[in-house]
Amino acid sequence: MSQLVIVGTVAFDAIETPFGKTDKILGGAATYIGLSASQFNLDSAIVSVVGNDFPQDYLELLSNRNIDISGLEIVKDGKTFFWSGRYHYDMNSRDTLVTELNVLADFNPIVPEAYKNAEVVMLGNLHPLVQLGVLDQMTTKPKLAILDTMDFWMDNALEDLHKVIARIDVLTINDEEARQLTGEYSLVNAAQKIFKLGPQFVVIKKGEHGALLFHKDEIFSAPALPLKSVFDPTGAGDTFAGGFAGFLANSGNYTFENMKTAIIYGSALASFCVEEFGTASLEKVTSEQLNSRLQQFKELTTFNIDLS
Amino acid sequence: MSQLVIVGTVAFDAIETPFGKTDKILGGAATYIGLSASQFNLDSAIVSVVGNDFPQDYLELLSNRNIDISGLEIVKDGKTFFWSGRYHYDMNSRDTLVTELNVLADFNPIVPEAYKNAEVVMLGNLHPLVQLGVLDQMTTKPKLAILDTMDFWMDNALEDLHKVIARIDVLTINDEEARQLTGEYSLVNAAQKIFKLGPQFVVIKKGEHGALLFHKDEIFSAPALPLKSVFDPTGAGDTFAGGFAGFLANSGNYTFENMKTAIIYGSALASFCVEEFGTASLEKVTSEQLNSRLQQFKELTTFNIDLS
Repeated sequence: MSQLVIVGTVAFDAIETPFGKTDKILGGAATYIGLSASQFNLDSAIVSVVGNDFPQDYLELLSNRNIDISGLEIVKDGKTFFWSGRYHYDMNSRDTLVTELNVLADFNPIVPEAYKNAEVVMLGNLHPLVQLGVLDQMTTKPKLAILDTMDFWMDNALEDLHKVIARIDVLTINDEEARQLTGEYSLVNAAQKIFKLGPQFVVIKKGEHGALLFHKDEIFSAPALPLKSVFDPTGAGDTFAGGFAGFLANSGNYTFENMKTAIIYGSALASFCVEEFGTASLEKVTSEQLNSRLQQFKELTTFNIDLS
Repeated sequence: MSQLVIVGTVAFDAIETPFGKTDKILGGAATYIGLSASQFNLDSAIVSVVGNDFPQDYLELLSNRNIDISGLEIVKDGKTFFWSGRYHYDMNSRDTLVTELNVLADFNPIVPEAYKNAEVVMLGNLHPLVQLGVLDQMTTKPKLAILDTMDFWMDNALEDLHKVIARIDVLTINDEEARQLTGEYSLVNAAQKIFKLGPQFVVIKKGEHGALLFHKDEIFSAPALPLKSVFDPTGAGDTFAGGFAGFLANSGNYTFENMKTAIIYGSALASFCVEEFGTASLEKVTSEQLNSRLQQFKELTTFNIDLS
């Protein structure tokens, strides 16, 4: 079976939206990526760290979905990474209220022995040196290394970020971050500049406007599903990345054509994620529901044009 | 042959972008709509007004493209509507520097006799009472009436705007304006509210993010073509509307399915419009170039997914 290594945060989140607020709930990039990728028939492992305050229930939630958590270090006298944020009315912007790094401050990732020759590595948003540390532990060069990052690392660890970008195949990044990283306003030009940094594929995430996939001179544009309401956008980008990585790892096909399909799977899974607080909706998606949503994406984008 | 009535401004524009600036050049909503619709084999007529300062060359430019200008009033002692604007670096926002209504201040539209039973009416951005005046002159109810408008009329003539919205089939509007008109942040909810005002179809224009078409519970999402540079966005929305209206009038098919194709044609024509200042690029588009760009839209959006 295909193997997927996931590195990223496993965290407590406390979320406020115009619709309500939560206590500390399960969150973190690796959590969303793992839950999303678990829709596919593959072996995945999360490489991350939590404290001794992390509930057994959450560990079982992950391992019950065939996610290997032997690389999820539990620090005995430590506390789990905690993030709290409040979304504005438009749900596109948010204020961070609390960030407690806790055990994440001294995190040294350890890839489980059984996963050191995994085909696909998904480097979720974390310090670039942690992401590099995972790549360094792989005994076989992965067939596909995907990197997600954010503006924080561009502001605070740009040199390290460049080092890891040089070693990956796919960069996923949002539109404003692509502009910041390259100094190019046009996303076409931004993608071309990113190619020169290393990756052969660039996925630019545009939230409610969908995503663009760039490869050489080819472009694919995927819409987001227009929704009546976005209840909680937390984790949508990670869910997208998890669906993308999971679909590709499961198929073992890393072509541009197949990545288009992977983007639609990622977008469909992200559309579930935003329906409820945290991971609640993602946890219960059935394959029938996923298929039905994929069908919606087909209907949303299909048109007939006679070019003869 | 199908007939299309176009009402809107015919104007002088002076445009500044980060790439340069123009003197007074040909502009106006009806101009862009007419030039765009002239890509299709149909009879169209512009209903508008200019002053005696409007060059003969511009009149010939329109009539040479089979656009009937008998409804384009020339006010002997008047000056043509003039707009000047400066685009910001991102090309998505602009400052209006000058607006001189001139002959537009007292404009009473007169639909040419031969066009009073046209199948399709495209009401370009103008005072809602002018748009209503055109509808009132139609002796046969058009098979399709399309309305374009903007926030200015929501702020200054909302009651009249509601009157004309109640009488049309398709409303084209941008995303922020749809939110303003309905008080709904979700574009799905906004479209549902607009249906209650009259139109059966709503097109929400999202600029570089493409467009959404809503009809009952169906949605179609069209991308914009990702471009290396946008030289001048002036008229892109009108060019889109002209391509949409022209394709539909030419086909005589006003179904949701056919409107999807019309949106792709409109988007393709708009992608030419932004390549040069004003109407320069739109004036010289060949059918081969248009076909090639439609092919790009197909490649941009096509994906394979096996839902069996």
